Amino acid sequence: MRIALLLAFLWASTPFYSQTGDEKQIKALYDTALSQGKAYDWLNHLSNQIGGRLSGSVQAQQAVEYTKGQLETLGLDRVWLQEVMVPKWVRGTSEFAYFETKPGFTTNLDIAALGGSVPTPLGGLKAGIVEVQGLEELETLGREKLEGKIVFFNRPMDPTAINAFEAYSGAVDQRYSGAQEAARYGALGVIVRSLNLRLDDFPHTGSMSYGDAPASQRIPAAAISTKGAELLSTSLRLDPNIKFHFRQNCRQFDDVMSHNVIGEIKGSTHPEEIVLVGAHLDSWDLGDGSHDDGAGVVQAMEVLRLFKLTGHRPKRTLRVVLFMNEENGLRGGLQYAKVAKAQNETHLFALESDAGGFTPRGFSIDGSNENLEHIRSWKSLFEPYLVHVFEKGGGGADIAPLKDGPIVLAGLVPDSQRYFEHHHSENDTFAHINKRELELGAAAMASLIYLVDTHGTLPAKGSRR
Amino acid sequence: MRIALLLAFLWASTPFYSQTGDEKQIKALYDTALSQGKAYDWLNHLSNQIGGRLSGSVQAQQAVEYTKGQLETLGLDRVWLQEVMVPKWVRGTSEFAYFETKPGFTTNLDIAALGGSVPTPLGGLKAGIVEVQGLEELETLGREKLEGKIVFFNRPMDPTAINAFEAYSGAVDQRYSGAQEAARYGALGVIVRSLNLRLDDFPHTGSMSYGDAPASQRIPAAAISTKGAELLSTSLRLDPNIKFHFRQNCRQFDDVMSHNVIGEIKGSTHPEEIVLVGAHLDSWDLGDGSHDDGAGVVQAMEVLRLFKLTGHRPKRTLRVVLFMNEENGLRGGLQYAKVAKAQNETHLFALESDAGGFTPRGFSIDGSNENLEHIRSWKSLFEPYLVHVFEKGGGGADIAPLKDGPIVLAGLVPDSQRYFEHHHSENDTFAHINKRELELGAAAMASLIYLVDTHGTLPAKGSRR
Repeated sequence: MRIALLLAFLWASTPFYSQTGDEKQIKALYDTALSQGKAYDWLNHLSNQIGGRLSGSVQAQQAVEYTKGQLETLGLDRVWLQEVMVPKWVRGTSEFAYFETKPGFTTNLDIAALGGSVPTPLGGLKAGIVEVQGLEELETLGREKLEGKIVFFNRPMDPTAINAFEAYSGAVDQRYSGAQEAARYGALGVIVRSLNLRLDDFPHTGSMSYGDAPASQRIPAAAISTKGAELLSTSLRLDPNIKFHFRQNCRQFDDVMSHNVIGEIKGSTHPEEIVLVGAHLDSWDLGDGSHDDGAGVVQAMEVLRLFKLTGHRPKRTLRVVLFMNEENGLRGGLQYAKVAKAQNETHLFALESDAGGFTPRGFSIDGSNENLEHIRSWKSLFEPYLVHVFEKGGGGADIAPLKDGPIVLAGLVPDSQRYFEHHHSENDTFAHINKRELELGAAAMASLIYLVDTHGTLPAKGSRR
Repeated sequence: MRIALLLAFLWASTPFYSQTGDEKQIKALYDTALSQGKAYDWLNHLSNQIGGRLSGSVQAQQAVEYTKGQLETLGLDRVWLQEVMVPKWVRGTSEFAYFETKPGFTTNLDIAALGGSVPTPLGGLKAGIVEVQGLEELETLGREKLEGKIVFFNRPMDPTAINAFEAYSGAVDQRYSGAQEAARYGALGVIVRSLNLRLDDFPHTGSMSYGDAPASQRIPAAAISTKGAELLSTSLRLDPNIKFHFRQNCRQFDDVMSHNVIGEIKGSTHPEEIVLVGAHLDSWDLGDGSHDDGAGVVQAMEVLRLFKLTGHRPKRTLRVVLFMNEENGLRGGLQYAKVAKAQNETHLFALESDAGGFTPRGFSIDGSNENLEHIRSWKSLFEPYLVHVFEKGGGGADIAPLKDGPIVLAGLVPDSQRYFEHHHSENDTFAHINKRELELGAAAMASLIYLVDTHGTLPAKGSRR
């Protein structure tokens, strides 16, 4: 009697998919990724043989050629390049900065120009420096206190945020808009505390914007290491009159031709429906871009390789896209979406990995509530692999332009605690990649892609798909 | 109507504890750990000022004094030392090993004596070497193939295990029993592949046993780095007749006096009920013991500090115990349990952290099914902190001797992927500790201790507690 009841209960709670088949294929994907993985070798090449891959650089072009060549070894149905014009910003010679308490008494600081910044004058920029805790404080101080000064944005990331990306979101406005806003009050330049939860010596670059300010109102902007920011802040408290001097000779060139790298396995029964897995091939120039986003690139490639190695032919067309220029323009993502629309392609699902190569914790899902619940119904399949998080959230910058009615976007959510020690800095290197963590991420992605391919997504309400 | 229904549903599903109060206190514990944490500073001292703390060493004694002194600054109700006799094994001068393909043609290899091993003869041990994949293979080969030889245990950890501790369990028999078993077939010594999922140059030591074999039948045992194991294995395939030479002059001394370090906050309403949080103060000698188990030590200390800083007085007596000699004897854990029993103390709950200072993923619980469910009913309180795992499993070696009827044992479960790169090797150093991950572990432990203290555990069936 009790057994009959239990069986009835189990029957009622059995999801509509074939549990055994799904469990088996997911196990095969994980086993293959962990025992015959290729992602780590690929990343070793990208990081140590090519290095930082800033858009428009020789290295970015080498990465296009290398990944295309590697995809061509996988026996996919098609591999091709998609042309896209990208910005070309170049750092130039290493920046320097120091502050001076009295003439001749100087202390050096570690800085790096923010991506897209204008240079300082040839001899550098030297001026008084005013510390603020954020954009709002500019108005309080006003032109009177800021004109002719360098503004030092020093609000740290909130250490009490559990997800480090939340802490990042709460501080990144200083980097992105600091120069544009400070220029409105007559500031001559800005120095921004690096977006790093740890105290260390690495400046972290990243994108910034001048909005529509004319060239004459664009002031140079640099990141300072967190330790440098602490030193500068303490020194300013002792002597508010210290002078700050920094020099950078970065430069914006004309746009150049580059490429998204694309490969696909044609679907066996629904070849017209595309399931996309992607990451961005470009990186910043300071490190070798292992976590951001070399890890995502090799994981996305590995997803298709795992399908081939496990002999699983997808029902839908499975496409890997390695996007160019996420960091300072998003041109690759925009171009891909534009071409997809022009060709009237149907994208069912797109998954991006762009949050580091750390232990995968889950996925963030950007789609209808019905599809969120649909994907959550697979949660128990992921539990043996310690993947627990299925939260509503963004998919990723490169795939965001694909968003329209029916598509579901998703992003891999790795453990975030160490990410901002590396992000956009010289400290983003292959030495900080753990092979197993990288492979577990690829396997989690392949498993989700497998489930979406096998069981589909739910059509948007009122849609005829 | 629908709102009324929703409210009724929420009411029905509200657990018996005061959700708001619990949520608030847990948030306070996390915020304090992440913004005013002391664990990282303590660990810096333990690791970089003291270093490896093998039982019976000067450093182990320094660690006793340092942690006692630090506990005394926290305003606890009582801090004391508990005497315990511990074994004293000393590595001696650095080991060496090489293999010889023909006289004079040698290749060096990285080895380290296993903890408790006897030395080789003074000039070292030189003999032919036979590779096996595990203890079972000894019988197949028999005395004929093994007598007068060195046995090389080379079964790797299983890379497809998702939890690295599972992979460890599947291979550790070679290290623990390899020498004892091989000696029965007349082998002269054993070399064991390090328990490391990564290929690198670090030999990983660890405990081993000769069982009740008399001194004359104890053969020397050493770990070889995973890269060394691969090299040796390949070389043996090319030439099965190569000679292996290794020397180690480790030595077992008489037992010496050492201490468990204990501190407590008296319970306000149930002072006779003890809630214990612990870790082990000793470590192996090769690294500085930051992950194993310096991290656990400072996290356990931090739990009491967080209670003091947030002004939360526990209802039960909250006791921190830093156990001596987990690694090669468990004498501290045994002694603590013996004294607790003799004094008729009631231990309600004991939580150990001894799996590294990585991002906490959850807890393993060793108690009745009712208590497992009781603790799982708090799961939603941990979800905002990305702590998801509440699994049945062991608590920890040091607290295991406390096990009797009513007590619930628990262990912190951190992310396991990187742990065995460090475990018992020169690579277990402070540089591999992430401050936030360490602090998140302390906060998770404090939160569980808070919930147990506030809501109690369930009495064993038929018990009168």
